[in-house]
Amino acid sequence: MLSQRLRNESFKDRIMSAEEAAMLIEDGMTLGFSGFTPAGDAKAVPVALVERVKKEGKPFKINLFTGASISSKVDSLLSDAGIVNMRLPYQSDKGMRKNLNAGKVHYMDQHLSHTAELLRSGALPPVDVAIIEAVAITEEGHLVLSTAVGNSPIFAQMAHTIIVELNLAQPLALEGIHDIYMPAPHGEREPIPLKHPGDRIGTTTLAVEPDKIKAIVVTNQPDVNAAMAPADEETATMASHLINFLRQEVEAGRLGPNLAPLQSGVGSVANAVFYGFLDTDFTDLEVYSEVLQDAVFELMDAGKIKVASGCSLTISPAKHDEVLENLEKYRDRLVLRPQELSNNPEIARRLGLIAINTAIEVDIYGNVNSTHIMGTQMMNGIGGSGDFARNARLTFFCTKSTAKDGKISSIVPMVSHCDHTEHDVDVIVTEQGLADLRGLSPRERALKIIENCAHPVYKPQLMAYYEEALQRGGHTPHVIEKALSWHAKFIKEGTMTA
Amino acid sequence: MLSQRLRNESFKDRIMSAEEAAMLIEDGMTLGFSGFTPAGDAKAVPVALVERVKKEGKPFKINLFTGASISSKVDSLLSDAGIVNMRLPYQSDKGMRKNLNAGKVHYMDQHLSHTAELLRSGALPPVDVAIIEAVAITEEGHLVLSTAVGNSPIFAQMAHTIIVELNLAQPLALEGIHDIYMPAPHGEREPIPLKHPGDRIGTTTLAVEPDKIKAIVVTNQPDVNAAMAPADEETATMASHLINFLRQEVEAGRLGPNLAPLQSGVGSVANAVFYGFLDTDFTDLEVYSEVLQDAVFELMDAGKIKVASGCSLTISPAKHDEVLENLEKYRDRLVLRPQELSNNPEIARRLGLIAINTAIEVDIYGNVNSTHIMGTQMMNGIGGSGDFARNARLTFFCTKSTAKDGKISSIVPMVSHCDHTEHDVDVIVTEQGLADLRGLSPRERALKIIENCAHPVYKPQLMAYYEEALQRGGHTPHVIEKALSWHAKFIKEGTMTA
Repeated sequence: MLSQRLRNESFKDRIMSAEEAAMLIEDGMTLGFSGFTPAGDAKAVPVALVERVKKEGKPFKINLFTGASISSKVDSLLSDAGIVNMRLPYQSDKGMRKNLNAGKVHYMDQHLSHTAELLRSGALPPVDVAIIEAVAITEEGHLVLSTAVGNSPIFAQMAHTIIVELNLAQPLALEGIHDIYMPAPHGEREPIPLKHPGDRIGTTTLAVEPDKIKAIVVTNQPDVNAAMAPADEETATMASHLINFLRQEVEAGRLGPNLAPLQSGVGSVANAVFYGFLDTDFTDLEVYSEVLQDAVFELMDAGKIKVASGCSLTISPAKHDEVLENLEKYRDRLVLRPQELSNNPEIARRLGLIAINTAIEVDIYGNVNSTHIMGTQMMNGIGGSGDFARNARLTFFCTKSTAKDGKISSIVPMVSHCDHTEHDVDVIVTEQGLADLRGLSPRERALKIIENCAHPVYKPQLMAYYEEALQRGGHTPHVIEKALSWHAKFIKEGTMTA
Repeated sequence: MLSQRLRNESFKDRIMSAEEAAMLIEDGMTLGFSGFTPAGDAKAVPVALVERVKKEGKPFKINLFTGASISSKVDSLLSDAGIVNMRLPYQSDKGMRKNLNAGKVHYMDQHLSHTAELLRSGALPPVDVAIIEAVAITEEGHLVLSTAVGNSPIFAQMAHTIIVELNLAQPLALEGIHDIYMPAPHGEREPIPLKHPGDRIGTTTLAVEPDKIKAIVVTNQPDVNAAMAPADEETATMASHLINFLRQEVEAGRLGPNLAPLQSGVGSVANAVFYGFLDTDFTDLEVYSEVLQDAVFELMDAGKIKVASGCSLTISPAKHDEVLENLEKYRDRLVLRPQELSNNPEIARRLGLIAINTAIEVDIYGNVNSTHIMGTQMMNGIGGSGDFARNARLTFFCTKSTAKDGKISSIVPMVSHCDHTEHDVDVIVTEQGLADLRGLSPRERALKIIENCAHPVYKPQLMAYYEEALQRGGHTPHVIEKALSWHAKFIKEGTMTA
């Protein structure tokens, strides 16, 4: 059994316990973990590391670099133990969030396609140890990755030590689904030869220098992905606005009958949009995204999606076994790539993606905050939204028009933090409606966003702000001393309502 | 003489006056003008159009699309005449600025690489008439462009009518310097095969359907470019900080001895940085930028720059004749491309550019405002800065630490408008010093920016804000009700000083 997973006898003497492997990590090191939202994450060694540090009782800090979010258990464990100095490029964990917002962890919120480039250019500390989940190690000592590719290729390339978590709970049928391609250094770089979402341009295994593999830890734990909340009425309405808009774009001749390759962020809105396609006549859809969630597979089953490319398979517990035990069914329509490829601006622009992402708040001019609550508290991170939004052919941002039982308006005079500027945002979607901002100047955008997207409770307040701003004039009118007053009011009084 | 310029006899009957050509333009049309900052702009027909409209005295509106800024005379004439409905993607003219800030012109501030894509996707009204300056029309009816390529290729492709301004004042020696390449529609698009700044991947002439050429207007006016102000002491200091930093990057092994292809925005700082290279040991530098200014040619003369690619030649009056009458000298080291190529994210990232652009203000977390004075008044536009900043290997933003005789601090608690988010900004440069933000979390960035870049007069004020913000906590600490109070104070009291 293990021989299928570890195909070179000579590697057997590197098998060790997670506790032993954790001893390879030294104070001050930079660690690169596999895992992307949070599929394919390192599961055993991080836990053993925390145990070890607690036992030793000595000061110990690491930098923690990942693909995107990893298991909440691991992010909380590590940050609560106080051993994380720098964390990047994304997280979505309550414990980590608390610690980084308290300034206890130096968090760098990055475009997910950028981390590999920043490492390559020396802008970040080099990765010392890569901890990578795999389903097999080949005869040559190369890795067959599991449910995510993420940043594992650059981590493995850069690290002097690779710890492999050989996870028997991940199906061997994943082999062949990955497509590992890495850009050459600057100055020697070729165009990325990918022209269609399903193109294979690299290798199915991650080639590593076999001598770097210092430890192989055998594990047997499935990914722990969050259950997918069923779409509530508002989410379903947003999905329906969006799909109707796509229909109109086809009618207007601006999109073909099979649309364009679809990208969608993580979460319930994106999932609802995808489920929404089940009830449409759209067929032969293509997906070029980062996380492939449940709906992608249902759409494949229904013959709606003909090919899907991502950098991780994040399947909810309810669908987990059905998808992972039937990978053969999807094999020829499924590709998993490094995140610098799945999120690459070169490819996003070449393919002309339709990008669907989620906002925390949007202002009346179309600027988007994806990350900070009330301008200061980090929620998760920008993730891939910037990689896609700027380069896509058509960029949607979705948000419910209010939050906190209506006490927060998601449409505000000015965003309290800006992640996506007006230049990069085409269409805003809320449950109230949709604002197509293409070809509009700021003053035109303001009227459309307020009219189509704001909640009725906040519309008069927004119009009052806008009209006062108009008296001041300017290309982008604002009453600067009141631009963030809604946020200040919420912080002070617990509501934005006037 | 004209036969060298108009190489197909059969086109001669399309020669007409600017006044006659202006009659081809109808109320409600969208016009695409050649010209980029402001080289190679349409010079005669726009003036004749305004005359005609004034004479006719009837309501008349056009949409005005260009490469970037065009002659101030033309932008002011058209907008003061009240005939401009929509203007994009960039301008830098006092008259146009006044009109768009008053809401009289719908201005869309765009990434300069985006306009062609937005036209192609149908997100903007299609161009009806293209007015394009050329130095010659070939036997086949193709255009030899003049000092800019800009958006002329997409305008010519899309328009049903092309008016050529055949400018005898522009040297025929420009022929062969252009490299016209246009991406195919989405779904059929190939990788752009450009691997080095000097690569030629297209044609030297702009192929147009000859029947679309409805008018040829012979002109004889050189480009009217602004004189280049000599670098003042602060600008020279910024340039020197930046060049010293590049030297340190080479010493640290993060850049090679010939650096990486350089991009620089328009204006005195960029020009000063380039002049600064004259006194260094750097050789064999490459330039992959949008506007090629005076310094590029002096650096070529000095053997410092081995190749330069841009989308326009914007030479000051002082250097104009010297460069344009000696083009042969630079021919094999000079390429002019469409702006969707010069500014393409695919290429910027592949080549690993060093991007040097100018900020209006920067906040303590590294967000950059490139466009709006006090959050509302448009200055020029984002231009190419976003195309480059996000995709470059190393991104600089430069600004003097104060403006208006010290009454404005360019380092503020929060930018009043955000064009470049913290994710896209590596290094801030002021005359006070330089802040390398790579690998820093927001709290680390704040200390470094305040310490290294702020003016001494504003440092205590910034630290006081930051310390108060720290009491509130968060990943990006702010006192939200005071975040824009510096701008509010300036608007009310004419100064930001406490």
